[in-house]
Amino acid sequence: MKASVFVGVSVDGFIARRDGALDFLDAGGGEPHGFEEFFASVDALVMGRKTYETVLGFGGWFYGKKPVFVLSSQELAPPPTEAVVERMAGPPTEIVAALAGRGFEHIYVDGGRTIQEFLRAGQIQRLIITHVPVLIGSGIPLFGALDRDTRLTHVDTRQYANGLVQTEYLIA
Amino acid sequence: MKASVFVGVSVDGFIARRDGALDFLDAGGGEPHGFEEFFASVDALVMGRKTYETVLGFGGWFYGKKPVFVLSSQELAPPPTEAVVERMAGPPTEIVAALAGRGFEHIYVDGGRTIQEFLRAGQIQRLIITHVPVLIGSGIPLFGALDRDTRLTHVDTRQYANGLVQTEYLIA
Repeated sequence: MKASVFVGVSVDGFIARRDGALDFLDAGGGEPHGFEEFFASVDALVMGRKTYETVLGFGGWFYGKKPVFVLSSQELAPPPTEAVVERMAGPPTEIVAALAGRGFEHIYVDGGRTIQEFLRAGQIQRLIITHVPVLIGSGIPLFGALDRDTRLTHVDTRQYANGLVQTEYLIA
Repeated sequence: MKASVFVGVSVDGFIARRDGALDFLDAGGGEPHGFEEFFASVDALVMGRKTYETVLGFGGWFYGKKPVFVLSSQELAPPPTEAVVERMAGPPTEIVAALAGRGFEHIYVDGGRTIQEFLRAGQIQRLIITHVPVLIGSGIPLFGALDRDTRLTHVDTRQYANGLVQTEYLIA
């Protein structure tokens, strides 16, 4: 099983403002930059409780019938009726083993803390980072502490007319 | 007068390790990525005392006869005999006004704290950021707090065979 991250960040490395707001991601305008193709390639999502609640707060449900595994030790807010949501808890290695055992082949890991924990545990194989042309100065960082250096292999970088720069890396 | 930053960072946004070490910048190998052309385009450098001392510690002097202005409220360690070094102190707007008044046209602002202070003061017009394909987890960050969002205009992104990705932005 492979785990990927697909995320938009400010040039100074934040995936959201301190209060979770994502307004600055519009700085590059709404030009398509491969999310739909990426989303079609995954068969499940893994995210933290905060990201789940943020998504619920948007009022729609983006993920169709694709299974969404929410990492939380607490009960979850009820999902919309059309959603396929399941709570899980445990360290990244156990989550990955459990999902691989259930036959998933490509998971999309999302949310600040969840991405950081999966990276630290060596459980991410691909990073697709889209830099939005703005500095916001503070917020929720994409990256966090690591136990050791993590070498990346650059696959490709794409630039868009609206100033988005998307870089894809593999992690050995 | 124009002020530019030309800097290498890990993908997680660090310009140096906590102890100032720059070893990880080699992760991309030594392929040329435009530094010489950039350096030829500036007529002075501005850096903080720590960066100055780090450069002195390298044992050579990279900057030839190009004037280097070191921001410090204290006496500086003596520069090599061939170097042109001058101490300055004051907020970025005053430094920029003083250098413009002396006829400089394009300054190269370097060093973590100095870059952050000049950005916060709105005194940087161009950012050339080279991402080195590694995550190091902690260190001296390129970016710091800002008083407000800073919109960037994407100029160009170049990718190198060794995995370096260099993005150039203008700040209005």
